[in-house]
Amino acid sequence: MGIITLTTDMGLNDHYVASLKGTILKSIQDVHIIDVSHTVKPFDISEAAYLLSSCYKDFPDETIHVIGVDSEPIVNFGGTDGSFPSILRYNNQYFISNDNGFFGSFLKEEAPESFWRIDNVLSNPNLFQFPTKNLLLTAGIRLLKGDKMETIASPFEGFKKAFTPIAIMEPNLIKGYVIHIDNYGNAITNIHKSFFTRFEKETSFSIFFKKKDYYIDEISGSYNEVPQGEKVALFNENGYLEIAINRGANGSTGGAQQLFGLHTHDMIRVEFTPQGSRQTLDSFFT
Amino acid sequence: MGIITLTTDMGLNDHYVASLKGTILKSIQDVHIIDVSHTVKPFDISEAAYLLSSCYKDFPDETIHVIGVDSEPIVNFGGTDGSFPSILRYNNQYFISNDNGFFGSFLKEEAPESFWRIDNVLSNPNLFQFPTKNLLLTAGIRLLKGDKMETIASPFEGFKKAFTPIAIMEPNLIKGYVIHIDNYGNAITNIHKSFFTRFEKETSFSIFFKKKDYYIDEISGSYNEVPQGEKVALFNENGYLEIAINRGANGSTGGAQQLFGLHTHDMIRVEFTPQGSRQTLDSFFT
Amino acid sequence: MGIITLTTDMGLNDHYVASLKGTILKSIQDVHIIDVSHTVKPFDISEAAYLLSSCYKDFPDETIHVIGVDSEPIVNFGGTDGSFPSILRYNNQYFISNDNGFFGSFLKEEAPESFWRIDNVLSNPNLFQFPTKNLLLTAGIRLLKGDKMETIASPFEGFKKAFTPIAIMEPNLIKGYVIHIDNYGNAITNIHKSFFTRFEKETSFSIFFKKKDYYIDEISGSYNEVPQGEKVALFNENGYLEIAINRGANGSTGGAQQLFGLHTHDMIRVEFTPQGSRQTLDSFFT
Repeated sequence: MGIITLTTDMGLNDHYVASLKGTILKSIQDVHIIDVSHTVKPFDISEAAYLLSSCYKDFPDETIHVIGVDSEPIVNFGGTDGSFPSILRYNNQYFISNDNGFFGSFLKEEAPESFWRIDNVLSNPNLFQFPTKNLLLTAGIRLLKGDKMETIASPFEGFKKAFTPIAIMEPNLIKGYVIHIDNYGNAITNIHKSFFTRFEKETSFSIFFKKKDYYIDEISGSYNEVPQGEKVALFNENGYLEIAINRGANGSTGGAQQLFGLHTHDMIRVEFTPQGSRQTLDSFFT
Repeated sequence: MGIITLTTDMGLNDHYVASLKGTILKSIQDVHIIDVSHTVKPFDISEAAYLLSSCYKDFPDETIHVIGVDSEPIVNFGGTDGSFPSILRYNNQYFISNDNGFFGSFLKEEAPESFWRIDNVLSNPNLFQFPTKNLLLTAGIRLLKGDKMETIASPFEGFKKAFTPIAIMEPNLIKGYVIHIDNYGNAITNIHKSFFTRFEKETSFSIFFKKKDYYIDEISGSYNEVPQGEKVALFNENGYLEIAINRGANGSTGGAQQLFGLHTHDMIRVEFTPQGSRQTLDSFFT
Repeated sequence: MGIITLTTDMGLNDHYVASLKGTILKSIQDVHIIDVSHTVKPFDISEAAYLLSSCYKDFPDETIHVIGVDSEPIVNFGGTDGSFPSILRYNNQYFISNDNGFFGSFLKEEAPESFWRIDNVLSNPNLFQFPTKNLLLTAGIRLLKGDKMETIASPFEGFKKAFTPIAIMEPNLIKGYVIHIDNYGNAITNIHKSFFTRFEKETSFSIFFKKKDYYIDEISGSYNEVPQGEKVALFNENGYLEIAINRGANGSTGGAQQLFGLHTHDMIRVEFTPQGSRQTLDSFFT
């Protein structure tokens, strides 16, 4: 049984998502249709990329992910601003999106297994009237039905890069960013736990956020390692540093976003103090 | 595998929708259950009709659509105000709703293939306690299981008409209305592109909205034919005139609704200027 | 075909729910996945319990309900404040939740068929990083695949009681509470219709809410038994007293919550006046 997931900014109040699902079922009934989210902020391809990069590993091989965010192609063969409906093969799954920066934001430094542009986009201008359905989803359905990729799309070198903020490492310092605020108000950063392995396990550090107004000195294994209502830093399941309030949530008791005024793109600094480093630093002045 | 779609005003926070789905699965498991929307404005049958009329063509034959909006029957055999749980056969699909104006709003000038009233509504007053489940959905499940329509409902002539605004044509003028604001703030009107075929292809025209404060002089094939942030008029996939902002959306960059203050039921005027018509008009004054 | 339902406070904007669904499909594809709700207020286990207690009867035997609200275990073998991932067998269905009061709130005075604690919770601390997925859902998938309960969990006596307000009966009086406000603004109480059977059918009564500012003197069989916009009391499908406005809804015409300022936990009083009781009362003063 095939699986198609849908990630769109179409919301829950319109007929658009139902049209997508009806179209799938009209062609193939032996399928699971899974909503990743339909409340992506309109045209926010980096939010769509965040969502899929956070959950694709949970899906089985050959899952087909259709991303309906900013999906109208821009056909501009001469210039560099065009965006073409495309298919990424990655981790044995398919990701079908307009090449509007989504793939760059999703892959970051990773390499695709393969990358393809959907053919015959210009054959019928009506396809542009609902391109998520008529271009992207249609390609996904054909893959699901067993059509060969070669009959749907052509290999293409390179996809549009995205200017996503990345975490960087300096001596004794990691600088990263809040990339997502979740339903509880937890702030998920782009600082991966692999960044910490450079330091000795017992190296002390402080995580600063909102400039230096707030900090956390340790990383917990779970929320409940701190008292209820207390701030806590931990690595989430995907290995990214998260700043949260234990059992806090926006709108009720207050989540980290609300209590600390955190927003997407806010800088997070992790300052390390390796044993002896302070002495070394001081030695410059003596 | 059968398909049941659900369109309700029950929202996403209650158990009602889960009760509907559990009830389906208790009777039949070889089924796809598709949510059209559960965030229809309470009792807004014309919104439900808009959603279904916009997406039913995407579903395969024999799909069963259950509409749970204003579904408590009003049994009033003498008067004309009654509303009875009913089944419409149309486009080889079933639409099951209370006859509260939904069918009139959905069909407009179209004729049903057939129309039926569900029998035995009064047999058990408890059915009225959750009529979408106990009357409408139950009938849908029986159809899905292969019960003959004759054992569920009786043919009935006529259904309740709805007073929906329709677009009208006058000489050199189309007057229509905004019938839906979508998730992006796009204003969808009830002006169909077939209305334009009366005029020569090169006839110039202006689309006026919010009285004459704003207008658009041409119809684009897709959003991106105008610059980002610019107003654009186009026909949507169903052929209806839509007024939008390219890559605009309410709440972020601003959609058409937000920027122009457009609302459902606002009038939209398309004024045509056939070659020579200006002269003709002017000739009255000379 | 198995059924898993999901009830969480994860919202619709994150990847968490998609991760749950992908995880199910990675293990088993012959399954229906049903969302009860993902918009439970964060950490509000009594809301989750209300939703499930309101709809579980609609699901077939052997349905597996996974409740992802406040699901991080608190492992505290010595004290009494621990909460362990647990499985309740009830009504021939499974309910899998952290034992954080959910089961107490769900069962109230009912007895489980059996109750179990999931084993090996401490075997891998990483399981705590997404416990709804890695502890609760994983157990549900194993049950669905036919694993014996004994290999997943161990029988346990007792579960955490919840301090949920219950309705009480005094002579000629029922005192209960609003336990839920639904999408229309209807106020659902915890007063069951069985409480009324103690009195003669023709005993007159008044239902008072918001102290004594408002009252209703009779119980209707359906909303439409009162005029549109009028207040109405009825028993909902599960037998609980509900206070509503016929065809009213919050945000449009005004639901009961909005018009009467009703909130969850507000007291509702039903005062009965058995024939002769007034005389009896008066006789104290004559």
